[in-house]
Amino acid sequence: MENPVGTEEIACKGACSENLSAVEDAIYVIGGKWKLKIIIVLQEFGNVRFNELQRTITGISARVLSNELKDLELNGFVKRVVHAEQTPVVVEYISTDYSRTLKPVIISLSEWGKSHKQNIREDVFSFG
Amino acid sequence: MENPVGTEEIACKGACSENLSAVEDAIYVIGGKWKLKIIIVLQEFGNVRFNELQRTITGISARVLSNELKDLELNGFVKRVVHAEQTPVVVEYISTDYSRTLKPVIISLSEWGKSHKQNIREDVFSFG
Repeated sequence: MENPVGTEEIACKGACSENLSAVEDAIYVIGGKWKLKIIIVLQEFGNVRFNELQRTITGISARVLSNELKDLELNGFVKRVVHAEQTPVVVEYISTDYSRTLKPVIISLSEWGKSHKQNIREDVFSFG
Repeated sequence: MENPVGTEEIACKGACSENLSAVEDAIYVIGGKWKLKIIIVLQEFGNVRFNELQRTITGISARVLSNELKDLELNGFVKRVVHAEQTPVVVEYISTDYSRTLKPVIISLSEWGKSHKQNIREDVFSFG
């Protein structure tokens, strides 16, 4: 017979294409290197200042952090609170209730990350 | 009192910093726009050819798909199978057992993506 391998065309329909586009939507909004990390820190500490955030999220530049915070605010995950009564004016960022809908995502990524690191360690030792 | 807001330094230790670095590890390996989508399609269809993959994952270029597949192979999520007995030689990609450890991540992202889209729809209608 001709070409017996993988002859059928694949068609990602129904649940498959629903999953694809749902994961795409999620990655579009919370993907990238920083957004979930910013949300984790804000959920941990409540109100956090820009400089504290930058200190806590190692490696993020002020420009990138500022852009990420704007995106997160735009999508309803972060609220920017200005304390004008302070001198100098104090600006803080807090996570919104909506950001808590990301808990299952953060937990699954965190658990997978831990077990993956563990697996790599064991591989390394098994070569040693 | 001086500067009553957010005076304490924040310190992301223990569970907080564990979460941060675990999520960072996960994003480092499976982050980006394409990797999880490639894994979803491979898990759905078993053995898939490069062209079928590119057709199914809308918008990905051949160069990017090729690089992503190399990364995924390197990290043990994808296996490249060459059917040398075929003419022309058939190359197919299959997802590994290890890629199934990502199921909880894919499910949580997919469910969040669906509910987020739903929320946006409702917001839009509520403005209408």
